Amino acid sequence: MKDFQTLLRKRRSIREFQDREVPPELVREIIRETCMAPSAMNRQPWRFSIVSNRETIRKLSDESKKNLLLDLEADPSSPLQRYGDILRDPRFNVFYNAPCVVYICGPSGLGSLDVDCSLAACYFMFAAAARNLGTCWIGLGAHLRDAALRNDLGITGDLQIVAPIILGYPKEIPEPPERNDPVILSIIQ
Amino acid sequence: MKDFQTLLRKRRSIREFQDREVPPELVREIIRETCMAPSAMNRQPWRFSIVSNRETIRKLSDESKKNLLLDLEADPSSPLQRYGDILRDPRFNVFYNAPCVVYICGPSGLGSLDVDCSLAACYFMFAAAARNLGTCWIGLGAHLRDAALRNDLGITGDLQIVAPIILGYPKEIPEPPERNDPVILSIIQ
Repeated sequence: MKDFQTLLRKRRSIREFQDREVPPELVREIIRETCMAPSAMNRQPWRFSIVSNRETIRKLSDESKKNLLLDLEADPSSPLQRYGDILRDPRFNVFYNAPCVVYICGPSGLGSLDVDCSLAACYFMFAAAARNLGTCWIGLGAHLRDAALRNDLGITGDLQIVAPIILGYPKEIPEPPERNDPVILSIIQ
Repeated sequence: MKDFQTLLRKRRSIREFQDREVPPELVREIIRETCMAPSAMNRQPWRFSIVSNRETIRKLSDESKKNLLLDLEADPSSPLQRYGDILRDPRFNVFYNAPCVVYICGPSGLGSLDVDCSLAACYFMFAAAARNLGTCWIGLGAHLRDAALRNDLGITGDLQIVAPIILGYPKEIPEPPERNDPVILSIIQ
């Protein structure tokens, strides 16, 4: 139990990384453990795309920012409006200059895809934390539409990105923030 | 790393339980650890309802089965048709006679609710496994519509059930099944 407690404290959302690459074999190990996640009807619908080239990561960030800004223009009431200023800042990289981004995606139109890939993402984040690596799920990084760029990643039009996750060696692992007390609606005994 | 590996092997979907109650304090501990999950914009939108009364669990199973069967009648092409026969069997309990069911739910209409509650569910399943408890996410158990029954659980109409999870002491922990090899769409270095 103590060990899981340690992992709970180590698994933090990390946005500042050491200038150090993640060995490809380590990424593969993490992905193998990720595939131990449960999935609806054991479909295991997850697919992975690994990007550890900083120039490509920058391009992917720019593409996602461009599309998010188009969405913001089209929908002034979008809850993403709070990100407007930062998205317009050309220096801002949605992937926080992480050395590696892994996209978890799967077949569009599968009803359980969000749930299945979220469980996989959780496994990914724990498997990384168990190796002293830091992660953060980057919702802002999922908005890739350029067909050529998507094809380069193997994320063709029939696939939907659920979880873009950055991965790297953390500059530091901050203490876990306070969480709200659990909201327990009922206990029926 | 070895410790997480152990937890990976212990976290299995469990559908056969010992005839033994789960101490309420243990359920609360697991829920406290569940709340360490990350969530979009740190909203922590999860709410919990704990049911450890076997008669109530049976009622909840019957209510979910009834609604699923109505859905099957209304939509002959539903992928749930494969469950038609078992749902019509009055002896079948969707919760597999587990001693405890925990519903993870949150505000309807929140775009990230499925993802947030799936991450919480993953934490819940690991936190339970770390205490030698077994869990299984029961998708078939989420279909509660009866207002009185929902009110008893505190799951009012403004809340959506994402993850009904059964919890108990496993009869046995089977070996992890084979998983498909990871599908890696691309590696860009």
